[in-house]
Amino acid sequence: MNQTELLHVNFPHLRDLKSFESAHSATPWLADNNAKHQRKLCASLEQAVIRSGLKDGMTISFHHAFREGDRVINSVVALLAQMGFKKLTLASSSLMTCNDALIEHIKSGVISRIYTSGMRGKLAEAISHGLMDEPVQIHSHGGRVKLLQDGELKIDVAFLGVPCSDEFGNANGTHGKSCCGSLGYAMVDAQFARQVVLLTEAIVPFPNMPASLGQDRVDYIVQVESVGDPAKISVGAARVTSNPRELMIARYAADVIEHSGYFKNGFSMQTGSGAAATACTRFMEEKMERNGVKARFALGGITGSLVDLHEKGLIEKLLDTQCFDAQAAASLARNPHHVEISTNVYANPGSKATSCDQRDVVILSALEIDVDFNVNVITGSDGVMRGASGGHCDVAAAANLTIVVAPLLRSRIPTVVKRVTTRLTPGESIDVLVTDHGIAVNPARPEIHQRLLAAGLKIVDINTLYERAISLTGAPKPIEFTDKIVGVIRYRDGSVIDTVRQVKECE
Amino acid sequence: MNQTELLHVNFPHLRDLKSFESAHSATPWLADNNAKHQRKLCASLEQAVIRSGLKDGMTISFHHAFREGDRVINSVVALLAQMGFKKLTLASSSLMTCNDALIEHIKSGVISRIYTSGMRGKLAEAISHGLMDEPVQIHSHGGRVKLLQDGELKIDVAFLGVPCSDEFGNANGTHGKSCCGSLGYAMVDAQFARQVVLLTEAIVPFPNMPASLGQDRVDYIVQVESVGDPAKISVGAARVTSNPRELMIARYAADVIEHSGYFKNGFSMQTGSGAAATACTRFMEEKMERNGVKARFALGGITGSLVDLHEKGLIEKLLDTQCFDAQAAASLARNPHHVEISTNVYANPGSKATSCDQRDVVILSALEIDVDFNVNVITGSDGVMRGASGGHCDVAAAANLTIVVAPLLRSRIPTVVKRVTTRLTPGESIDVLVTDHGIAVNPARPEIHQRLLAAGLKIVDINTLYERAISLTGAPKPIEFTDKIVGVIRYRDGSVIDTVRQVKECE
Repeated sequence: MNQTELLHVNFPHLRDLKSFESAHSATPWLADNNAKHQRKLCASLEQAVIRSGLKDGMTISFHHAFREGDRVINSVVALLAQMGFKKLTLASSSLMTCNDALIEHIKSGVISRIYTSGMRGKLAEAISHGLMDEPVQIHSHGGRVKLLQDGELKIDVAFLGVPCSDEFGNANGTHGKSCCGSLGYAMVDAQFARQVVLLTEAIVPFPNMPASLGQDRVDYIVQVESVGDPAKISVGAARVTSNPRELMIARYAADVIEHSGYFKNGFSMQTGSGAAATACTRFMEEKMERNGVKARFALGGITGSLVDLHEKGLIEKLLDTQCFDAQAAASLARNPHHVEISTNVYANPGSKATSCDQRDVVILSALEIDVDFNVNVITGSDGVMRGASGGHCDVAAAANLTIVVAPLLRSRIPTVVKRVTTRLTPGESIDVLVTDHGIAVNPARPEIHQRLLAAGLKIVDINTLYERAISLTGAPKPIEFTDKIVGVIRYRDGSVIDTVRQVKECE
Repeated sequence: MNQTELLHVNFPHLRDLKSFESAHSATPWLADNNAKHQRKLCASLEQAVIRSGLKDGMTISFHHAFREGDRVINSVVALLAQMGFKKLTLASSSLMTCNDALIEHIKSGVISRIYTSGMRGKLAEAISHGLMDEPVQIHSHGGRVKLLQDGELKIDVAFLGVPCSDEFGNANGTHGKSCCGSLGYAMVDAQFARQVVLLTEAIVPFPNMPASLGQDRVDYIVQVESVGDPAKISVGAARVTSNPRELMIARYAADVIEHSGYFKNGFSMQTGSGAAATACTRFMEEKMERNGVKARFALGGITGSLVDLHEKGLIEKLLDTQCFDAQAAASLARNPHHVEISTNVYANPGSKATSCDQRDVVILSALEIDVDFNVNVITGSDGVMRGASGGHCDVAAAANLTIVVAPLLRSRIPTVVKRVTTRLTPGESIDVLVTDHGIAVNPARPEIHQRLLAAGLKIVDINTLYERAISLTGAPKPIEFTDKIVGVIRYRDGSVIDTVRQVKECE
C-alpha cells in the first residue's frame, strides 16, 4: 500500500486525493519554454475565437470605453458572421452610433439577443422599428453587474480591446498608442466571463503591472492594428459644451449644489456624461475656492474638468469607471489618487459595497422628466431609442442629492412632460430639476426646497415648468406604438421598470 | 395586463423577470443614512462572528503576513472557543511559533482540521506527536489557491487583519500603525471566502483607494487595538543573517547565477525566505553593476535588499506577495513599480497565468535535500515538523534555474541525505545545490554543469556531498515513526507527494 492508499483507508473523506505524478502533470506548458511564454498568444482573431470554444447560441461581450471611437465590436461581430456563427447574445456594456454595422448581423441572425446600457443612431432606430424578434434588455451600469452576479447574463466569451498587454494578459488602458483610460467596464467582463480574449494593439514585456485586467482573468491574446480611436471618446454624449443655454443651466446647478446643504468640506460629487452636467464642474471650482471647500472624491465618468480640480487640490480622489476624454486618461496614468474602479465597485446594487452609496451630490441629464420627476434617458419624444441608461438610476438612487439638468425645450420639443415616454429612473430618486426656466424641487425634499428658496434661487413648481413648456410648444401629439415590445428597461436591481414598444411607421 | 405580464406572455424565457417595486427594494440601507454608512461596522468581534453566520463544522481562514508578529489568529480562535464553537477547520495561509496557543483549542475540539503551508514551535511538535485525529494538510502558497479554486477548501469566514480600512472595507497593509505591507495572501481569502470579516486597527475616511482588499469583497468590519507587530515579521525564517557560513553559501549562489547562462539583461529572480537565500541578493548587486545587467523583476517575498536594488535601478519591478521586513512594506507604499500581487497571480498552477512561470532564477532553502535532489522543508531530521511548504514547490517547478542553498551540516546533522524524511519538492524541479562544501548540479541539466565548471566553480557530485556529510557525522540513526499519519504533503497541483507520520516517543 503506498502512502496515498494508506491515507484513503484511514481517512475516507480524503479518498479523492490523488498521488503525485510529476512536477508538470498539471502544468505541461512548464516543460516547454515556448509554450510557457506563448500559450495565450493567438496568431489571429479567428484562432482566438476557435480556441475560446465559442458556439452558436452563446453570449459574447464587449466594453465601450472607446465610446464612438470603438473598433472592436463591429470587427469581431463581422468576423463571427464570416465564420458562420448564429443566434449569439450580444452583451456590450453599451452601444453607440458607431455600431450601425451591427444591423446587418442582426438581420442575418448572427445576433439574436442584446443586453446593453443603450444604443444610438441607425441601430437604435432600426431596433425601435422592430428589427429584432426579441426585445433588447436595457440595463444600467450597476445593473449589468447585478445581472452577471445573479446569473441571468452569462458571458461565454468576452472580447476586450486594450492598448497594451503583456504575453500573460496584464493589460491597462493608460499606456500605448490608443489610450481609453479606465477599463472599469472591462474589469467586470474579465471577472465574470468564462473565457476572455484580449485584443491588444501592443504586446509589451512582462510584467505589465499594476494591471487593470490581470493575467489571472485572461485566456487568449491577439494583437490587432487598432482597438479604438480615443479622439472619439468625447464625441456625442461626452462632448464639452459652449452652448450658452447649457452653460446657464450648468451655472444654476452649481448654485443649487452650493446652497443645498451638502456643499461642505469633504463632500463628494459626480457629474454624468451630459454636456450641461459636465460643464457644471467648471462652475464648482470658483465656489469651492471661495468657500474653502474641498471634495473628498468625485466618482463615475471622469472628465478633464474634474482632473483640473483634482490637480488643483480641490478634489482629493477621482474614482474612475470611464475616462470621458484624453485628459482624464492621461491623468489616470499619472496621478496616484486618480483610481480606476470597476462598475462592480462603482454601482452594482448587489455588490458587498458600491461607491455610489457614499456620494453626496450627483448631476444627471435627461431626455424627458415628468411632473412626478420620473426620468427618461433612452427614448426621444418620437418614441425612438437614442440614449443609454448608463449609471443614471444607480447613482440617482444612492446619492444624497440628485440633480437633473435639462433645457425646458429641445428643438421646440418639451423636456418636462406630463408622463415620460419611458421610465428609467423613478421620480423618488430625483431631488431637484434644474432648467433654463427655473429650478423645481421634489416635494419629498422640503428641506432642500427651503434652503434654495432662502438662497434666492428661482424655484418653481414642476407643474409650472410643464405648463410653461406646453404653452410654448402646444401639447405634443401622442406617439403611436404597436403592441410589440422592442426594449425592456431593467432597473438596477434587475426588475422591469418599463418597456419600449415598436414605433408605428408614419403612413 | 401590466407591462411585465405582457412581457411574460410574449417571451416565455423572460417569465422570471419581476416588476419594479421601489428604488430601494434591493438596497434598503439607502433609505437610512446611518445604515448606508455603517452597515458593515460591528461593535465587537463577537458581533462580527454572529453576523457572519459561522457555525460548528465550518472553515475559518487567516493570512500570515505578520508572520511571528500576528495577533489575529490566536485571539479570534480564543474568542470562538469562548463562544462555544466546535469542529472548525482552520485554514491559515501559514502558522508560526506564535501560534502555540492553538494547542489548547485543538485539544478541546474547537479546531479539528487544519490546512496550512506550515507550522513551527510547540504547535508543530504537538501535532507531530499525534495531537490531532486528522492529518494536517500542508499546501504550498500556489497550491492553497488551487485547493480553493477546485473547491476542496471552502472558506466560510475569513478573518483578515489589516492596519487600516474605510467603513466599506477598502483596506491596505501599507498605511497605519502596524503595516505588514503586501496583503497577497489575504487577497485570495477575500476573493474566495463566503464571508469576510476585517479586523482593522484604524477606520479611515472613504475612499481608502487604491485598495488591496476591496469593498466588494468585505462583509463585516471590526476595529481592534492591534492586528500584529510588524517588527516580528523578519524574526525567524525571514531573518537577515550575519553568519559567515550562510554568507559564504550566499556568495557561491550569486556566482552560480552569474555563470548559469541566465544572468543577462532583463532576467528575473526570486529569493525565498531563508537567510542565505535572502543574503544572496546583496551579492547580486555588485555583479549586476559590474556586468551592466538589470533585472526585469523580482518576485515573491520581498526584502529590504531587493528594495535597495530596485531603488538603485537594478530591478525594474518588484512583484510582492509578502513583505519580509519593514523596509519592503515602506517601499510598497512609496514605489509605484513595487506591485502587490495575490498568491493567485504569484503561484497558483490552476490560475489562467501565474507570475512564477515567467521567472528565470530562484534561490530556495532546504532542511534536507537528497541525492535525487528531492527537497524537504517541513520536517527536521528528528521527523518533527518545523517549517513550511511556502512557495517552494511552486517556484521550483516554474523557474528556469532553481538553486537550493543549504549548509552541508546543521548542528552536526547532515542536510544532504540519502532520502529526504519528507518530500515537498521533487528533485526534477531542482537544478543546482549550493553548499559550503561545494556545488552540485542536477544531472538533468548538463549544460548548466558545463557552464559552472567552465567558470571555475567548485562543482561536486551530490553523492560526494552526501558521503562527505556522512563521513563527518556518521550515518544518522533512522527516525522511528508510528503508523499514524499526522500530515499530508500536497503538491501544488493538489496531489499527495508525501505523508508525515507520528514520531515515536523516546522511551
